[in-house]
Amino acid sequence: MTKWVYSFGNGEAEGDAGMKALLGGKGANLAEMAGLGLTVPPGFTVTTEVCTYYYDNDRTYPDALKAAVQEALGKIEAEVGRTFGSSASPLLVSVRSGARASMPGMMDTILNLGLNDQTVEALAQESGDQRFAYDSYRRFIQMYGDVVLGVEHHSFEDVLEDHKDRLGKTLDTEMTGDDWRAVIEDFKKLVRDEIDQDFPQDPEEQLWGAVSAVFGSWMNARAITYRRLHDIPAEWGTAVNVQAMVFGNMGDDCATGVCFTRNPSTGDNHFYGEYLINAQGEDVVAGIRTPQPLTEYERDQQESTARSLETAMPEVYAELAAVRDKLERHYQDMQDMEFTIERSKLWMLQTRTGKRTARAALKIAVDMVDDGLIDRTEAVARVDPAQLDQLLHPTLDPNAERDIIGRGLPASPGAATGKIVFSAEDAEAWVEKGEKVILCRTETSPEDINGMHVSEGILTTRGGMTSHAAVVARGMGTPCVSGAGELRVDYQTKTLHAAGRVLEEGAVITLDGSVGEVMAGEVAMIQPELTGDFGRLMEWVDEVKVIGVRANAETPLDALTAKKFGAEGIGLSRTEHMFFDPHRIVHMRRMILATDEAQRREALDALLPHQRQDFLELFHIMDGLPITIRLLDPPLNEFLPHTAEEMEDVAKAAGVTMEDVRVRRAELDEANPMLGHRGCRLAISYPEICEMQARAIFEAQAEIIKEGKQAFPEVMVPLVCIQREFDMQKEIIDRVAKAVMEEQDMELDYHVGTMIELPRACLIADEIAEKAEFFSFGTNDLTQTTYGFSRDDAGHFLDIYQRQGVLETDPFVSIDQSGVGELVEIAVERGRETRPDIKLGICGEHGGDPDSVAFCHRVGLSYVSCSPFRVPIARLAAAQAALADK
Amino acid sequence: MTKWVYSFGNGEAEGDAGMKALLGGKGANLAEMAGLGLTVPPGFTVTTEVCTYYYDNDRTYPDALKAAVQEALGKIEAEVGRTFGSSASPLLVSVRSGARASMPGMMDTILNLGLNDQTVEALAQESGDQRFAYDSYRRFIQMYGDVVLGVEHHSFEDVLEDHKDRLGKTLDTEMTGDDWRAVIEDFKKLVRDEIDQDFPQDPEEQLWGAVSAVFGSWMNARAITYRRLHDIPAEWGTAVNVQAMVFGNMGDDCATGVCFTRNPSTGDNHFYGEYLINAQGEDVVAGIRTPQPLTEYERDQQESTARSLETAMPEVYAELAAVRDKLERHYQDMQDMEFTIERSKLWMLQTRTGKRTARAALKIAVDMVDDGLIDRTEAVARVDPAQLDQLLHPTLDPNAERDIIGRGLPASPGAATGKIVFSAEDAEAWVEKGEKVILCRTETSPEDINGMHVSEGILTTRGGMTSHAAVVARGMGTPCVSGAGELRVDYQTKTLHAAGRVLEEGAVITLDGSVGEVMAGEVAMIQPELTGDFGRLMEWVDEVKVIGVRANAETPLDALTAKKFGAEGIGLSRTEHMFFDPHRIVHMRRMILATDEAQRREALDALLPHQRQDFLELFHIMDGLPITIRLLDPPLNEFLPHTAEEMEDVAKAAGVTMEDVRVRRAELDEANPMLGHRGCRLAISYPEICEMQARAIFEAQAEIIKEGKQAFPEVMVPLVCIQREFDMQKEIIDRVAKAVMEEQDMELDYHVGTMIELPRACLIADEIAEKAEFFSFGTNDLTQTTYGFSRDDAGHFLDIYQRQGVLETDPFVSIDQSGVGELVEIAVERGRETRPDIKLGICGEHGGDPDSVAFCHRVGLSYVSCSPFRVPIARLAAAQAALADK
Repeated sequence: MTKWVYSFGNGEAEGDAGMKALLGGKGANLAEMAGLGLTVPPGFTVTTEVCTYYYDNDRTYPDALKAAVQEALGKIEAEVGRTFGSSASPLLVSVRSGARASMPGMMDTILNLGLNDQTVEALAQESGDQRFAYDSYRRFIQMYGDVVLGVEHHSFEDVLEDHKDRLGKTLDTEMTGDDWRAVIEDFKKLVRDEIDQDFPQDPEEQLWGAVSAVFGSWMNARAITYRRLHDIPAEWGTAVNVQAMVFGNMGDDCATGVCFTRNPSTGDNHFYGEYLINAQGEDVVAGIRTPQPLTEYERDQQESTARSLETAMPEVYAELAAVRDKLERHYQDMQDMEFTIERSKLWMLQTRTGKRTARAALKIAVDMVDDGLIDRTEAVARVDPAQLDQLLHPTLDPNAERDIIGRGLPASPGAATGKIVFSAEDAEAWVEKGEKVILCRTETSPEDINGMHVSEGILTTRGGMTSHAAVVARGMGTPCVSGAGELRVDYQTKTLHAAGRVLEEGAVITLDGSVGEVMAGEVAMIQPELTGDFGRLMEWVDEVKVIGVRANAETPLDALTAKKFGAEGIGLSRTEHMFFDPHRIVHMRRMILATDEAQRREALDALLPHQRQDFLELFHIMDGLPITIRLLDPPLNEFLPHTAEEMEDVAKAAGVTMEDVRVRRAELDEANPMLGHRGCRLAISYPEICEMQARAIFEAQAEIIKEGKQAFPEVMVPLVCIQREFDMQKEIIDRVAKAVMEEQDMELDYHVGTMIELPRACLIADEIAEKAEFFSFGTNDLTQTTYGFSRDDAGHFLDIYQRQGVLETDPFVSIDQSGVGELVEIAVERGRETRPDIKLGICGEHGGDPDSVAFCHRVGLSYVSCSPFRVPIARLAAAQAALADK
Repeated sequence: MTKWVYSFGNGEAEGDAGMKALLGGKGANLAEMAGLGLTVPPGFTVTTEVCTYYYDNDRTYPDALKAAVQEALGKIEAEVGRTFGSSASPLLVSVRSGARASMPGMMDTILNLGLNDQTVEALAQESGDQRFAYDSYRRFIQMYGDVVLGVEHHSFEDVLEDHKDRLGKTLDTEMTGDDWRAVIEDFKKLVRDEIDQDFPQDPEEQLWGAVSAVFGSWMNARAITYRRLHDIPAEWGTAVNVQAMVFGNMGDDCATGVCFTRNPSTGDNHFYGEYLINAQGEDVVAGIRTPQPLTEYERDQQESTARSLETAMPEVYAELAAVRDKLERHYQDMQDMEFTIERSKLWMLQTRTGKRTARAALKIAVDMVDDGLIDRTEAVARVDPAQLDQLLHPTLDPNAERDIIGRGLPASPGAATGKIVFSAEDAEAWVEKGEKVILCRTETSPEDINGMHVSEGILTTRGGMTSHAAVVARGMGTPCVSGAGELRVDYQTKTLHAAGRVLEEGAVITLDGSVGEVMAGEVAMIQPELTGDFGRLMEWVDEVKVIGVRANAETPLDALTAKKFGAEGIGLSRTEHMFFDPHRIVHMRRMILATDEAQRREALDALLPHQRQDFLELFHIMDGLPITIRLLDPPLNEFLPHTAEEMEDVAKAAGVTMEDVRVRRAELDEANPMLGHRGCRLAISYPEICEMQARAIFEAQAEIIKEGKQAFPEVMVPLVCIQREFDMQKEIIDRVAKAVMEEQDMELDYHVGTMIELPRACLIADEIAEKAEFFSFGTNDLTQTTYGFSRDDAGHFLDIYQRQGVLETDPFVSIDQSGVGELVEIAVERGRETRPDIKLGICGEHGGDPDSVAFCHRVGLSYVSCSPFRVPIARLAAAQAALADK
């Protein structure tokens, strides 16, 4: 026979922490604590299987349930020596939901259940405190009326406000027992009027009403949405926990509090928490009274004058400290606990693994290894990779006021404050004058690169997580909020419009690039510090991880940052970013606007030495580590001159008329440049571009070898979707390599491969792998084409999609495993069929996303490549993926 | 032992027509003719297996080959009573290549092989014609020198020109035997100078040189490219045919000619051909002398004064007419034959299935059924679907002069002549004045629709086969050349620039939309006529085909055309095309520019009656046939006002300022609209759009039912890539349907499905099929995203790709079976897994392409849908696919 109900209390329990699936998280931990001999108010858990039965059987209960609940209730009654519904010594209970995973949107808690017009009198007598008893009763009616009977919360509040107004009282604490009694009468009347029934006086009816409300809340709209978004199956169900009430608000020998086994902000191994004398749990949270520090140590730290629990109730404190040791040692992790002290007796109400800051997570993990509590792999598993960002960038002081004027995407983490400017040129000019600036643009383009470089932060009103601004900012480690659609930039008047407010050029704003908030004025900031703990953990990480981690880098600064953070090579060096330098852009533009090969070659010849120098610097820094160099990729119109002045410069340099430039510009204009004449399509039309780039690479390689260093270039052909596209490019690259080897009389070691970034390339990966020595998955573009989402335009509707629950996560942030992921898997499989030792990597922005890194590990890629600042995150995520695999 | 050589002649043959793989097309047919007892010059075929051996064994021959060739040569010698290399009675032979499939780019023919300084004398004596003998010899040296020895053709021509200049002669026919003798000396000297060897005098050496040249040409660059483009495996190899020479130029009892068993232009069952007395085959082709008609009938038809063969050589003619009957009856198809008459003896040199016009193909197929030669299914298989276009549109007179000023894509077939105008407004204005116009645009947009409608033809300088201009033009049946990149339109000066020529507004041009040519001036045209043969064949087609054929149609005219051509329903009705009417566009624009739902609803309410009327008209015409109605799809910016005037109209109608319109316009602007806020993304953002359209559909359906007619709408949600996108839209559509059913108190039958047009949709087709009742593959968009090719921009590089052999065919024209096709197959499989009876169709432009139709048949789609004018083509292609399947 199925066991539907599990009891706990009095040092015993029928369940334990391993039974979360059956008892829910809260129920399992309560059972565990009871089993450990801690003083837990006795109670029982109605299992998640009852929930499943309930929905499978038209909202009815198993026959045996009633008797089982009765029996479990009897056990509580026996232990606390009270009787449910007794008008002499009534048992009061709390009813709480508790699913396997924490689930907002479900019914939470009903306290004081069992109170009615009779039992409230008994409570008054027993406690000797009428006010307490009637306050408890009115709270129960209010809570139960709201969540079980469906009378809206605010209706009760209205009644209460009426009473207070009439009595000329403001605070609940001013209300007397008689006042509450009058309120209760009106509450009961309200219930009668609203639901045409009396408020239930029968405690058993109350109990079943509460149980059904918990199960009912499992299927309410908010819970369903939450489950869909978090992939929680409806079959899991929720459990219901019924526990004897204990009261922290029955006098000055009562208290209630929350505590952590270690400091959750710093990770310091000191007992940490706060409490209130004569209060209920909700009072600690409500913030009406200021909670007091738990320990003397904490009191000193906070320079507080309030009494600590350590001083106020030394014996109870000692008991609690023992519980702290016991639970942490037992769970081998920092715990977050709730307790109540009723007439000097300690009751533990909850324990769970405590949330912590990145710094604390790191320190706790490392300390626990040093203390022998956990081993290194466990420490690696404990730190959330996404949290590491906090350690690498400045963050806003969580206690500082924020005057939020708009929200966008958290495009590049970290916080920044500065004066707003509206053009890259202005940014450079202001910074030269010693100002700190935030560059505000509708969107950025490659020409803005220098202005972006000098800015503290970047704000755009358009564009997604992989827009130009976002990608470049992450690469630089500059905080960025992108696609802040509520804001509007007006270039003409140099103003930023935010819901009725207008900020002039030079106004100070603050960005939080980690959450996507834009704030007026300056907000206090916390600077990051990398502790020794970080270095130690990352060493352990590298012992565990299987997949390699490289960085996307094209400037010497990027490459240095990447190396500092432990990158094992460069997975993506975008050569086009190298052409925006003012000395080069003119040649680039001449090349683009050329109408014949001779003109094009002339311009390319001028670019060659620059490009060679670029590679030489990268080879120097990376000294022998592999560098994947992607040949020219973007639509040429990204390089086109825009202003009349720029067009004149180009016309002059190329010796043509302005009209020629204008006509050629118009010819190059495309309706959808992302799907246009770009990638290897350019170099098939103009093979001399590929030749120049290949020559720059191999000449630089030859030079570095002559200097006694090593270099291993992986030449990457972008945007291939037809086998012959790749083959033709490889022929050129091999031909140039051979020529340089002959000219320099030396052997050069290199690979030629391709970026797999179009659905068709995935499908014909077997054909491409005939000649390609490596694949690098360009999952940004692959996501664009698989979904048909332009990353520059998707901001608008992706926002709506996420709000409406059409999409859980932005597929540009975390790889879409069922669509894009399947294409990657197909390509991996087919590529390996043709060439078993093919090198496989990923260089989209997903390379720095922990879930995506786990995916890459699972499908067996050789490495991931990400922005330099995300390298530690990717390393940790890779290690965790390897652990999860075992 | 492998048989390397197959002999034929003297009424016998070792091979037959079934052995094309081994003997090549030419060799197999020669053997077949010999086997039938026709007088074929005796000869032999060296098999394709020798070619394979040759390449597998480092360009050497099998040991046994030499003896086999010797033996076969001996048979020829025996039969004709001549000896190879004999200076008394020399045997001369021709050497021709002949692969399994006809292959341009390979060595074609060497005639007169066996001639040398001795045998030429014998030939002179035997023929009694020195001039003939030396002319033959110099031709042989020239041909052999070029293709076997690698001395360039023009070097021989230079020598010949020198001689003629010196002699003061212009024509070859003026040259005497002695003149030729002098030329031969210089030819031989040229060879010696160029290759440092004497021209080979040994006939056997000549023969092996020629054989090796044929095999060598199998691997020349042009042949390799051709094979790659036509998917011909290199392993097939070529055969070599060696035949005794016969001469049509040995006097007035000699002749040569080509003939068809029926008229290849009209299909009339009359013997048809032309010939020349005393001439070689090449003279017929060269066009120096005008060939004479074969028959008296033909002579009357052509009102020719030349003697027919029928009159000139009645006996030989009778023999040839008997061959005609024999071969046509034997091959059961119209034959294209070559013959030579040497001293009144008829020799058959070649027979093959003859090429024919569409009209002829149709007539021949139907006539042959009537004559009991073939059955109906064979007739269906005989007509090339692509050719049918000729019957449905006017075509240019093939004999008319064409002054070609530019080339583009053959975007919509047919020919058109008119005066050029440069805007849709001008087109309307000129047509109102009674002019016929060709609309010339860089590209067209939906607003140009009325101007396009009244134009004779449409020319764009940008855009591919599925650009707006191309799709709309095909829908209307209006000839169109798109993406004519060499031309430039200048709107300011209203001129069309074509390689140095400038055409002013009003200049007359002619378009050939079937081949993509643009011509200055008027070119004579042939009007199409649909004969009874067409109707009969299409009846037989429908008996055979499995897959259904529908049309893409949105206007009543489209729908009527579709029905006339036998469409079984509408597979794609694009609702957005309905909004460009001047009465509607203002509301559409108000809707787009609205900043809140209330404004949007107001505008939509104004559109509802129009939209309902649209559907009512379609339902009327299609009366019960299914109509797939696609909900609003294109990026909204296609509807945006462009001119200040338009913006003012909208501002006035919406009661907002011009500035509001300007700001909103800027907000809606997208970097890549094709991947932007369009398709169901619009209706998820603004569900009221979907509601309005659904209401219009169902209200129209209710109305038509009340009129006693039937309607079956299939409501199609566009651009789905996430399951929930579809589910949310279906909820709305079902809700509106239910509401209309209640309001009208009747049942409405309908389906809701989706367009599968993104790679991700294919991959999650199983999920989408949970609620979707049909899929329609939008292979235009699927091709765009699978390749990452924007159809608006791809013109530029697709042209380069085709020229460089990167791509064989434009994937927007014929479905890419390995990439896009695999995605379609995946979607078909997964969709059927979830919903076995799901209706599957295709509505991209591929629906009218015969290869694509065959693909759709193979993967098991329920129907294809195409432009109304392509419906007959699709029907025929569908029937042929069904036949190929058997």
